[in-house]
Parts: sequence; C-alpha cells; structure tokens
Amino acid sequence: MRPPADVGMPLEEVDTPALIIELDAFEANLTRMAQAAKAAGVRLRPHAKTHKCALIALRQIALGAVGVCCQKVSEAEALVEGGVRDVLISNEIVGERKIAHLAALAREATLAVCVDDAGNIADLDGAAARAGATLDVLVEVDVGAHRCGVAPGRPALDLAKRIDAAKALRFAGLQVYEGSAQHIRDHGERRAAIDAAVEAAGNTVTLLAEHGLACRSVTGAGTGTFRFEAASGLYNELQAGSYIFMDADYAKNRGEGGELFDDFQHSLFVYTTVMSAPAPGRAVVDAGLKASSVDSGLPTVHGMPGVTFTGASDEHGKLEFDAADIAVSLGDKLKLIPGHCDPTVNLYDWYVCVRDGRVQALWPIVARGALL
Amino acid sequence: MRPPADVGMPLEEVDTPALIIELDAFEANLTRMAQAAKAAGVRLRPHAKTHKCALIALRQIALGAVGVCCQKVSEAEALVEGGVRDVLISNEIVGERKIAHLAALAREATLAVCVDDAGNIADLDGAAARAGATLDVLVEVDVGAHRCGVAPGRPALDLAKRIDAAKALRFAGLQVYEGSAQHIRDHGERRAAIDAAVEAAGNTVTLLAEHGLACRSVTGAGTGTFRFEAASGLYNELQAGSYIFMDADYAKNRGEGGELFDDFQHSLFVYTTVMSAPAPGRAVVDAGLKASSVDSGLPTVHGMPGVTFTGASDEHGKLEFDAADIAVSLGDKLKLIPGHCDPTVNLYDWYVCVRDGRVQALWPIVARGALL
Repeated sequence: MRPPADVGMPLEEVDTPALIIELDAFEANLTRMAQAAKAAGVRLRPHAKTHKCALIALRQIALGAVGVCCQKVSEAEALVEGGVRDVLISNEIVGERKIAHLAALAREATLAVCVDDAGNIADLDGAAARAGATLDVLVEVDVGAHRCGVAPGRPALDLAKRIDAAKALRFAGLQVYEGSAQHIRDHGERRAAIDAAVEAAGNTVTLLAEHGLACRSVTGAGTGTFRFEAASGLYNELQAGSYIFMDADYAKNRGEGGELFDDFQHSLFVYTTVMSAPAPGRAVVDAGLKASSVDSGLPTVHGMPGVTFTGASDEHGKLEFDAADIAVSLGDKLKLIPGHCDPTVNLYDWYVCVRDGRVQALWPIVARGALL
Repeated sequence: MRPPADVGMPLEEVDTPALIIELDAFEANLTRMAQAAKAAGVRLRPHAKTHKCALIALRQIALGAVGVCCQKVSEAEALVEGGVRDVLISNEIVGERKIAHLAALAREATLAVCVDDAGNIADLDGAAARAGATLDVLVEVDVGAHRCGVAPGRPALDLAKRIDAAKALRFAGLQVYEGSAQHIRDHGERRAAIDAAVEAAGNTVTLLAEHGLACRSVTGAGTGTFRFEAASGLYNELQAGSYIFMDADYAKNRGEGGELFDDFQHSLFVYTTVMSAPAPGRAVVDAGLKASSVDSGLPTVHGMPGVTFTGASDEHGKLEFDAADIAVSLGDKLKLIPGHCDPTVNLYDWYVCVRDGRVQALWPIVARGALL
C-alpha cells in the first residue's frame, strides 16, 4: 500500500486514515522504560507484537534492551530480516510448517520459544536438530491468566527436564506473564495479582534449582504491572510493549493514590478526516473498524473537549458533540487515541512519524499481518 | 506476507491462522444472488469492501454484475489495477490528495462517487476537469442510518442541480443505503425500515424528475434486506456484499416465518490450530483479535457442537467445552465462522480456496489495508 504522506509534509496534508507517531512523546516513553529497567537492575525485552516494526525494535535495543519478544514465527522472521539479532517468541509454536520455519530462523539469530507440552518439545528438538540449529526454550507457567502455560511446580519441572535432556534445545527459564492483571484498574488489586504470580513462580524456580535446573530467565510483565515485577527480586526480564504508545485502555489504570496512570504519554494516533457533516450536530470521520480496533472500546478524540467518538462501522466513525456550539467542519482532521494499540497497528502498513507538526519519517510496519 | 498454503495441499496441512474459502458454498452464493437480481429485473453491483479481491470481483461480473462498489479510492485503485472496469465508490471522498487520485483513476475506468456536500461537488469538479476526466456522481440520501447523506427531498435536489451544472461531473442518481436495517433480526421490522426508505427516496426521485433531473441509478441494499429493495419498483441496482461469505452476525437474521436466515451458506472460515491444551477442559487456538474481528461478536466454531469460542486476546482464542467428554487435542485444526466478515478479511493477504478438502487456488486480497 502506498504511504499516506511524504517526508517533510506538514501534518495537516497527511492523507487519512493514517497512523501517526508523535516522536517527542514516543522517544520520552522509550527512555523512561529503559531507565526504569536499568534502575531496577533487570533486563528489558520489549514486546514487538505492539509495534511490529524492526526500526522501532532497533531503537529499543540501542537504548539498552537485550532484544525483543514477539508472538509468531512470521513476526520473528520480519524482525530478523530487519536486523534484530535476539528474539523471544513468548508463545507456543505448534505445527510442522511453523516449527520448520522457526528452526531455520534459529540459524540466523538467537531465537527462544515457549512450551507447555511434552510432545511439542520433541517436535521442536527434532526440527532444530534437522536444521542444525539450537533453540532456547522456556517453560510457560500459568499464574492466573488461564490461557497457555502449565501449572507451577511439578508440571513445569517435568517439562524443564525434557528440554534439558533434548539434543538441540537449551533450557532457558520460565515465561511468567500475568496477562489478566494488566488492566485491573485498582493499584492494590493489580499488585496483589502480581504478588501471587511471583510466589507461584518463585516456588517453581526453587523446585527446579533443587533438581539442578537453573532458570537463566524469569521473564514476563506488561505495561500495566512492570514496576511490580521489576521490584520482585524474581523476574530478571521485562516484556512490556504498549508503553511506547499508550492506548486509551491502559490510560484508565489507577496509581497508588487513585490517580490515573501517567507513566507514559499517548504517542500513537489515528489521524482522520471529517468526511461528512450533512446536518447540525452530526459528523462522520473516515476511520471506522478497519482503521481502529474496537475490541477494548472505541477510540477517544484527542485534544477536543466535548467531541466524542460514539460509533464505528467498517469505514466510518460517528462523532457527537456535547453542546450546540461545538462542531467540526468538512475536511477537518482530528487525532484519535485507539482503544487498543496492538490490533490497531496491525491494520496499517506505515507509521507516519511527526515532530513539530511535520512528517519526519515513514517507518514500514514490516510484521503487519504476520499471522503464521 | 508469504501465503499459508501451496496449491494442491490437503486442507489439514494449511498453516494457520488462514482465511479459507470453501469454493462450492462460495460459488453457490454467487450464483444465487445473480439469479435473484436477474429474476427481479435489477442490476447487481456487489460490494467489494467485503472481499477486497479483484479476482472475486471479476467472477461476480462474469455472472452478470455490472461492476462493483467499494468505499475508498485506494480500494478502487487496487480493483481497477486488477482488471475491474466499472467501480462505484458508495461513499464521500473528501480531501485534496484523495480527490486527485480519484480523478486520475477516472481516466482508466468508469468511476462513480457519492456526495452530500456542495463544496465537495466543486472540489470533485475541479479535480476531474484538471485531470481531463468525467466522474459520475450520486447524491447520498439519508433514509434512517443517520450516517452520511443529506435529507430526502429539497436538500437532495439542491445537490443534484449542482452536479448537473458542473462541467466535469455527470449526475447519476441516488445512493440510498439503509445500513441500520441490515441486522434487524425480525423480518417484519426489517421490511418496515426498507418500506420507509423506499417512500422517502421515491418522493425524492419524483421531485428531481419534476426538475428535469432523471435518476439513472437508485442504488443501495445489503445482504440483510436486498429482497425488499429488489421488489420495491424503485431501486434498480443492488449493492449487497456479505452474501458471498455470510458471517455469524447475518446468520442471526430471521425470515418471514421466524426461521433463521438461510439464503446463503457460510463459505468463509478462519482456519486455526489448537496451540495449547495444558489441562483438561482448557484449550487455546492461534487465532485471536488479529485473526478475526470481534466488533460484531466472537467467532463461532464450525461443525463442532459443544465447543464454544469464549474469548479472544491479540493472538489467542479460548475454547470451552459443554461436557467433560468433549475435547480437542494439541495440533487439531478447526474452522471458525467470523463474527463479521468485512473487517476480518482486511486482516489477511491471501484467500486459501479449498474444494473437496484440497487447496485449489490462492487469491491475493489486493485491497487489504486500502484505507486511503
């Protein structure tokens, strides 16, 4: 797809819908997380499923990240092709075709993957051996999200032993991501969920150590909870991803004193044009379901008090106005804050990077649509 | 993105998530709608925003469709590039850059566009004149959806006169799409909504005729209501799109006797693998929010009674089982019926076309991500 802008163009001339990164806010977010990880003495391995962009991954690594995470083999392929040398697929990879691609990629870069099944370990080992590659493998432990992962304790130990005994695999530690805690609004409840995860994972680390299996990595955490994992004394690697952009959903989390979460700034916007304003009090923008994912709520309108995005159909978004004297005109361009950044980014081929009101760069979203 | 399959491969070997078209059901849907339009004596101009695929558009045209609709200039560009000669953009196009692309494209194919604003008509006329092109222009009339479009009657007449007076534009008729009626479940209520639209649009056609303005096209209708528009005596063109695939949402509509809507068969599926099944009663598939749009509800599991898709995160879908003796195994592949086809299709680069359990063709989704 052709990009919606040219470098040097004023923001107002960018075609829409377009995915805008405000570089000042974005760079401040990158720096803030890098400093937080450094101050806590833990590694940072940001999640690239958020941005799907090798150029952003390389910027994170330049600020001290040890590599990135992603969720799919095809994402890892796009990132390695773009110059990233160390990728953890923080997910299970099941299926002959996928595993063959993973093993081939492990010859080009340092690749790690997660498991929660003994048969899958055998499949990974066989494919890595055939490819002449070595894979780092982590056991995913379920600490509350009840999605993937085995129970803490003995089930994790059993899998770790199998990895350790495999010829072409290296046991690398535990994947412990408490996904269901990320959007708990209350600070105390969010902390309690991570405390429980830390206890369960800590007991597992101890059990493994008693069997001679050292966990090089205890890795996990997200933007909603990373300060708890960083201070846990157990986790040595953080996988936060959304912090670079911040979405409307994360911005609803509360801090210790009940204040809204403000560690990071909104830096990602869907830029959109008012394409219809046929009657007073009605206006439609050109960004709908195919321009902003609504799974975690509708986008919000940035910097325009009294203007609300009230509904999305495939290619349209409806605006409503709090008062009769608030209005927009045909052709006006607005910034929307997506409800959920990750699936919204996946709808675009280009980031339009803006500083001081001008397009500074166009970054390709190389892993857009990388489903396999 | 690399395709998830090779031609000739058995379905079970297709990598996942993949977007599958079952060709027998798909072709039956195409034929059924073509016959319905022919029997009613109205033109068929299927909506390509559903499929975004030039090869599908050409198949629809081969069965008698006069052309296709789409919503975006960049979609029209991709379709014309793929060989489609007649495209109606059933939407307003606002903004200098977009209009310049539209005018340029109108030199390559027959292009029509909708308007609901006088200034926009002037912009279209200027750009078409500069490009040495002629654009067909329809007035969009709002008949209940309260999205785009002017009110029936005088506001529509005023715009039609302006189009008729413009140098590089041709007045082509009325765009009358009752989008909010498509998913009214009850047959009688759905019919009543279209009856109201037909009355309002019919009065407008009469008013325009009294002023010497003939409506060559009265165009609209969707998969939920097309039989009403086809029988109205007013509409002479149908824009249904979803009928080719059928999604879970349309399948909830009811017929005259209260029966579920069964004019068309489900032909589009998200093929997915069980990637984690770490404990009894739990299973996770590799298709989440980035593989199936959930704006109109979660996908349903095809052909597996007792198995329910109960939740989606970015790259994961959770399954639940009605009884302890129902289960799936790691590596099993299932078919999901998307809640909403159009934004789901927009997540993929390839259709994997299947007949008799084998991959017969790979069709590129050329207008995937065509937002501009």
